[in-house]
Amino acid sequence: MNHIDLKIEHAFIVTVNQSDDILYDATLCVQNGVIVAIGSYEEYKDISADTIIDAQGNVVMPGLINTHTHAGMSIFRGMADDLPLQTWLNDYIFPTEAQFCTRENVAIGTQLSILEMIQGGTTCFADMYYFEDTVAEICNTMGIRAVLAQAIVDFPAPDFENPHATLESLDTTISLYKNNSRISVIPGPHSPYTCSLKILQQARTLANKHNVPLHIHVSETQHEYTQNLEKYSQTPIEYLAQHNIFSGKTIAAHCVYMSEHDREILSQHAVGVVNNPQSNLKLISGIAPVPLMKEADIPVALGTDSAVSNNSLDMFQEMKTAALIHKLNNANPTVLPAKEIVRMATIDGANVLGIDDKVGSIEIGKQADIIIININQPHLVPLYSIYSHIVYAMNRHDVDTVFVDGVCLYQNKQFTLADPLEIMINAQTIANAIQEKYE
Amino acid sequence: MNHIDLKIEHAFIVTVNQSDDILYDATLCVQNGVIVAIGSYEEYKDISADTIIDAQGNVVMPGLINTHTHAGMSIFRGMADDLPLQTWLNDYIFPTEAQFCTRENVAIGTQLSILEMIQGGTTCFADMYYFEDTVAEICNTMGIRAVLAQAIVDFPAPDFENPHATLESLDTTISLYKNNSRISVIPGPHSPYTCSLKILQQARTLANKHNVPLHIHVSETQHEYTQNLEKYSQTPIEYLAQHNIFSGKTIAAHCVYMSEHDREILSQHAVGVVNNPQSNLKLISGIAPVPLMKEADIPVALGTDSAVSNNSLDMFQEMKTAALIHKLNNANPTVLPAKEIVRMATIDGANVLGIDDKVGSIEIGKQADIIIININQPHLVPLYSIYSHIVYAMNRHDVDTVFVDGVCLYQNKQFTLADPLEIMINAQTIANAIQEKYE
Repeated sequence: MNHIDLKIEHAFIVTVNQSDDILYDATLCVQNGVIVAIGSYEEYKDISADTIIDAQGNVVMPGLINTHTHAGMSIFRGMADDLPLQTWLNDYIFPTEAQFCTRENVAIGTQLSILEMIQGGTTCFADMYYFEDTVAEICNTMGIRAVLAQAIVDFPAPDFENPHATLESLDTTISLYKNNSRISVIPGPHSPYTCSLKILQQARTLANKHNVPLHIHVSETQHEYTQNLEKYSQTPIEYLAQHNIFSGKTIAAHCVYMSEHDREILSQHAVGVVNNPQSNLKLISGIAPVPLMKEADIPVALGTDSAVSNNSLDMFQEMKTAALIHKLNNANPTVLPAKEIVRMATIDGANVLGIDDKVGSIEIGKQADIIIININQPHLVPLYSIYSHIVYAMNRHDVDTVFVDGVCLYQNKQFTLADPLEIMINAQTIANAIQEKYE
Repeated sequence: MNHIDLKIEHAFIVTVNQSDDILYDATLCVQNGVIVAIGSYEEYKDISADTIIDAQGNVVMPGLINTHTHAGMSIFRGMADDLPLQTWLNDYIFPTEAQFCTRENVAIGTQLSILEMIQGGTTCFADMYYFEDTVAEICNTMGIRAVLAQAIVDFPAPDFENPHATLESLDTTISLYKNNSRISVIPGPHSPYTCSLKILQQARTLANKHNVPLHIHVSETQHEYTQNLEKYSQTPIEYLAQHNIFSGKTIAAHCVYMSEHDREILSQHAVGVVNNPQSNLKLISGIAPVPLMKEADIPVALGTDSAVSNNSLDMFQEMKTAALIHKLNNANPTVLPAKEIVRMATIDGANVLGIDDKVGSIEIGKQADIIIININQPHLVPLYSIYSHIVYAMNRHDVDTVFVDGVCLYQNKQFTLADPLEIMINAQTIANAIQEKYE
C-alpha cells in the first residue's frame, strides 16, 4: 500500500468499536470506499492519496444512523403542531397526504430530508413510506446509505390501490436492489392495527424470501396496546410473535408500551427496537422502557421519526433527549450514560438494521461512513469526555464533513453532490400549494 | 430622521409584541442603540445609515433571554455526568469548586459562556454565581446584557468567608452598576436550605433598598420540598412568603414541586419563575408544572441552568425540550404551543427579570437586542409557521448575527469583539489542571 483514495490525518477518532477505542492524532486510510488502515500519523505519513484531509485534531467518528423516519414527509414540516392527535391526523395529515402524497412530492420531500440528514452527520437512514422505488433511486443518486421499507397498509395507499399490488411490486423492487451494497428495499407493513394478519404474514414471507428485514410500527400508543389486548387478549408484541411475524429479522419502531413477557419475546426473536423519544413526547405517546429493554438484551437504536412529529431529523437532538428523558423516567441519573447513547446512534443502529458488518463503527474492513466534527468551538470547550460532548453539547451544525462509502457528500459545510437551493425551492412550492388549500 | 446608526432591510420580523405581529420585507431602524422605526422597505429606503444590513428575507427577532444560569461553571462542562446526585455533588462538583472556583477561573468560565450564549442568539442572561463584581466587568466589556445575582450562602464561599461580608460588598457592587443600563447586580441568596432566615431577609432588604430583584433557587427537588415540610410544616414557597422574602421582585429558579396554594402565593406576589427543563431532567429533579403556573398567571421564563447540569447554554434546545416535555407530562399536545414557548424565551424572560420595558420584543423605543437567523436551510424548509420552526426545528448555529443595544457582537457567524481562541485555550488550561487532580 503506497497510494490510496483517501487519507484523513491528525484525527481524534472515536471508533465506537467493541472496546470503545479512542485514538488521538491518528491517520485513517480509505481505499475503494473501505477503511483499510488506522494508525498513528507517523505510521502512514509516507502514503500518498488522491485526497488528504487534515482533521486538525477534530473528531472523526462513524456517521449517525437514523433508524426510523419517513423522509418524504418533510414537505409537511411544521404544517400542524400542538394539536390533539385525532385533529392532527384527521383534519391535517390524512387529508393533506391524500392530496399531496404523490410520487413527485415524495421525491422532493425525500431529497430535502437527505440534505438535512447529511448536513447533520447522518450517513444512513431507515425509511418507511410510499413510492420507495423512487426513494431508492434518489438515495442511489444522492449517495446516502439507506434501508427503505415500502409501506404496506390494508387500504388504498397513495401509491397502490391494495396491499397485494404493493407486495407484488415490492418483490421486484427488492430484487432490483439485491446487489446494491448501499441501498436495500424491504417490506414495511405499517402496523398490526393497519394490516390484516394475512398481509402481515405475506410481508414476512416476502422478507424471508429475500433474506431482508421487515420494518413495522409496534405498540406506539397506550390506545394501540389496550385495543390489541381487548381485541385479541394479547399485547401487540404477543400477537405478532404468535403469528410468526418475528420469524426473521425485524425492525420494530417505538415499542413504548410492553409487558415483561413482551421483552422476553423481543429478546428471544432478536427483534431490534427503535426508540424515537422526541416524536413520542410531541405526540404524547409516552416514554419507552429503553433501560429495561437493554437489560433484556434487546438491541435498541435511535430514530427521529418524521419531520411532522419532531420536526427535525436531527440525531444529535435525539441523543440528548434520549439521555435526559430516560434518566428522569427511571428516576436514575446513571441510566443510558453518554457512551451507551453514542452506541445507540451508531453501531446499535447498524445492528438493528442488520448492517453492522458493514458500518456503525470505525474499524478496518468497514465501509468509510465517517463524519468530521469541529470541536474547536466555545460550546464544546473544555474537553473532559468526548462522549459527554457528543451527547450533551454538540449539535448538527458542528458537523463539517461527511463521507459515505468513502465518497464525500458534504465538505467544510458545503454539499458536494446535491443542489440544495433547487430542492428547497421545490419543497416550498409544494408547501405553498398546501397552504392555499387551507386558506 | 435622515441618517441613523443601523438599518436592517428585507427582514422577516417576528416582533413578539403584544399582538404577535409578523412583518415581511420590513425595515428596522436603530439610533443610539434604540429601535426608532419599523416599517416597510419603501417607507425607509431613502434613509441613510452607518451600517445597512440586507437580511435577505431571513428572520429578525428579539434576542433570547437565558433567565437562569451559572456562567462561570462552564469550565466544568462534561467533567462528571450520568452520576447519582450525591456522588456528583460530593465527589466532583463541591471538591472541584473548592479548589478551582477562583476569581480568575470564574472570569474565564464566564467569558466562555458568553461566547457560547452570543453565538446561540442569547443577548441577555441572568446569572447566579460567585465573584459577580468580576462577572459584571466582563459583561460590560463583552457587550452582553446581564442581570447578575451574587450568590449568598450561609457557609464560607469561594469569594467571601461569610454571608455578611458578601452582603456588605454586594451593597457597593449594586451601587456601582446602578446607572449601567445594560448590566445590573442583584442579591442571589442561593436557596431556603442553604441560607438562614436572617440572611434571606437581609438579602431581601438589600434588594429592596436598591429596588432590584432577588434571584433564588426554590423547590428544585422532591427532597428539598419534603425536608422543608418536615422542618417547618410549610412548603419552601410558603416559608419564603411568610418571612417576606417575596416582598419585592423575585426571580425563582426551578419551582418543580409546589402545591396549589404555592401557585396562589407566587401569583399574588408576582414572583417570576424560571423553568430549566433540561437540567431538571438530567439531575432527575422532575418536571415543573409550567402549564398550571401559567394558568395561575405566574410569569414563567426559560433558563438553561449551568453547563454542568445541561451541558449547553442553548436556548433553542431549551425551547424544544420545554415544548415537548410539558406536553407529555400534561398528557395534552396542545399545552405550551410554539408561540407561547417563543414568548417564554424572549418577552416573558424580560418580564421575569424586570426589564421588559427595555427588551424582549422588537418595538419602537426598545433597545436593539436583535438576532438574525438564516432560514434558507434544508432543515427549515418548507415554511408554514415561523413559531413552529423557531421551537421545533431551529438550532443555535442558525443564528448569523447578534446585536445588543444596537452593537453588533456577532456578524455572519464571526465574533466582532471577543477573541474566542484565547478564551477557549484558557478554559482548556483550567480543565487540564482539574483532570490532573483526578488522575
